[in-house]
Amino acid sequence: MAKPVVGIMGPGENARPEENEMAFALGKAIAQEGWVVLTGGRSFGIMEAAMKGAHEANGLTIGILPTDDALNSSEEADIRIITGMGSGRNIINVLSSHILVVIGMAAGTASEVALAIKANKKVILLHQDEITIRFFKNLGTYKVMIANTVEETIQAIKDYVRVTPFTALKNRDSPDAREMER
Amino acid sequence: MAKPVVGIMGPGENARPEENEMAFALGKAIAQEGWVVLTGGRSFGIMEAAMKGAHEANGLTIGILPTDDALNSSEEADIRIITGMGSGRNIINVLSSHILVVIGMAAGTASEVALAIKANKKVILLHQDEITIRFFKNLGTYKVMIANTVEETIQAIKDYVRVTPFTALKNRDSPDAREMER
Amino acid sequence: MAKPVVGIMGPGENARPEENEMAFALGKAIAQEGWVVLTGGRSFGIMEAAMKGAHEANGLTIGILPTDDALNSSEEADIRIITGMGSGRNIINVLSSHILVVIGMAAGTASEVALAIKANKKVILLHQDEITIRFFKNLGTYKVMIANTVEETIQAIKDYVRVTPFTALKNRDSPDAREMER
Amino acid sequence: MAKPVVGIMGPGENARPEENEMAFALGKAIAQEGWVVLTGGRSFGIMEAAMKGAHEANGLTIGILPTDDALNSSEEADIRIITGMGSGRNIINVLSSHILVVIGMAAGTASEVALAIKANKKVILLHQDEITIRFFKNLGTYKVMIANTVEETIQAIKDYVRVTPFTALKNRDSPDAREMER
Repeated sequence: MAKPVVGIMGPGENARPEENEMAFALGKAIAQEGWVVLTGGRSFGIMEAAMKGAHEANGLTIGILPTDDALNSSEEADIRIITGMGSGRNIINVLSSHILVVIGMAAGTASEVALAIKANKKVILLHQDEITIRFFKNLGTYKVMIANTVEETIQAIKDYVRVTPFTALKNRDSPDAREMER
Repeated sequence: MAKPVVGIMGPGENARPEENEMAFALGKAIAQEGWVVLTGGRSFGIMEAAMKGAHEANGLTIGILPTDDALNSSEEADIRIITGMGSGRNIINVLSSHILVVIGMAAGTASEVALAIKANKKVILLHQDEITIRFFKNLGTYKVMIANTVEETIQAIKDYVRVTPFTALKNRDSPDAREMER
Repeated sequence: MAKPVVGIMGPGENARPEENEMAFALGKAIAQEGWVVLTGGRSFGIMEAAMKGAHEANGLTIGILPTDDALNSSEEADIRIITGMGSGRNIINVLSSHILVVIGMAAGTASEVALAIKANKKVILLHQDEITIRFFKNLGTYKVMIANTVEETIQAIKDYVRVTPFTALKNRDSPDAREMER
Repeated sequence: MAKPVVGIMGPGENARPEENEMAFALGKAIAQEGWVVLTGGRSFGIMEAAMKGAHEANGLTIGILPTDDALNSSEEADIRIITGMGSGRNIINVLSSHILVVIGMAAGTASEVALAIKANKKVILLHQDEITIRFFKNLGTYKVMIANTVEETIQAIKDYVRVTPFTALKNRDSPDAREMER
């Protein structure tokens, strides 16, 4: 049976220390709920920290790698999906996650939030600044949720999962998605 | 010899009339300079308007389609690249353009601006609101340029082209790109 | 730590009953060795049969789906990677597998064997006809192995794994690959 | 209006001299008919030779590049589509061509023939050996045509174009495609 997958997205090399700590705590909390953690798979920043946290609670981790080999994969990725597509793999991160949580912000991360809204997915913006929140709320009000702590994030995922079974991954071209997008 | 390619990105179905008019004028002005217009290829909004404008000045147009056939292509796309990748094709729009201009905003469009900054490309935000400008400036100050009119946009492209030959499409993983991204 | 992944490729709807039985037996045998089974994820033919077999031995299964949602996923896929790329996802099947086994033949399957040779991967042709073997041997002699039974296949994987650690997924553009390809 | 696009596929570095000559003659003949030549865009073998031939007759050429920049593009590619997808771009070569011609054979080329059959496209095997012809005929009898000279190839394209307008690029998942594939 399909395992529930929570995508955790955020900067690589340039993630701030407090963002990495939050990603670690979130990865651990998600694994404790029995959910799988999916990231961009690289050995840096939010990706590595979130998967390390998941392992702390014996969770399973998936890394969707931009490279065409596993040489730069994080050791914390149990399942390594090798795409060879560079940033083109960001859409796969989004489509393969039932729901996404975003910690920190960078260009690649922003593309994932935007693609998630486009694909009609729920995105939780965790501890983001005012500009970021307003920008993405303008793009898809009902798709974007705000959280300030790991606890709020886990609660938001639970609320969502209760009403939306993990098997019901929505089609990106649903009429709903089109309406959503302005 | 490679033709210079300017990507024009923006919403499809939900583009506003005044945005479509601006896209038409921009496509025409770009064709008058002898440059090729590249869009997402669909028969709606900014994509169709920009290519229609280019044809007004006998320009060449490229449409990078998300679908796996050409059934929903705009009739205005001379060269139709069929990707079958959905929004995954947005990275190809970005990488195949020497410089990008963005009119209007929607989720797919936002992903293209973010991917462009990530890929170390110049992006001109044309007639955008304060929130949008501040959000993207935070992601890549030196990559994002601001313009309010078609004339300013054409001048910005000319200034850029003068110092950066069209053959020098930059690698997305250049050290410069990494610095840029925070 | 990265789990070893064996890709099992073959026809969907049009797989023959005896091919499906072989795929089931192979999936089970692979899971018994503690390896993960990766397939194209659809609810038909070799893909579904191989994953069903893996589950018979409590194995873990990955499905790399061509669609942009999970609606047509096989129920037997534990990890569902949603690509939205159609047959474009075949390269991901190949790159994400440490070694590939092919049962039956169809157009999509043939593309995966060819992409595997191109990517410098080992491919085991299981119970294939003379024409198929000669065609692919011509493309990459040292990459293509022949087996007639599930037992021979498992032995070939073990021999390979002994000398090639699962972490060493090769780069498709290695000089070796280029030589190989004629 | 969409220009008719003929894909010419074949080996890169390892193409034989007589294959390159045939690709040059074919590219030229295609351009003389007013059709666009599409290739994998690299500065080697069949790709470069076919585009050089097209330019001899003032034709337009498209190169779909595997890299994420244009540094290794053939100078003969007028339109450069930068995918950053490695061999993943082969599906785009196929989908974007109305009909494909194959000269020489290598692993990447074989993947393109297979993907073309899967996508329900016509493929002309030009001057291929017996094994290759029998292998691909087994995969899709009605999709694979045989030619031994450039003249036969041009005639086959003309016959095809007469009954199948260039706008009617078929969907890869059409029932017809499924039947075709065994």
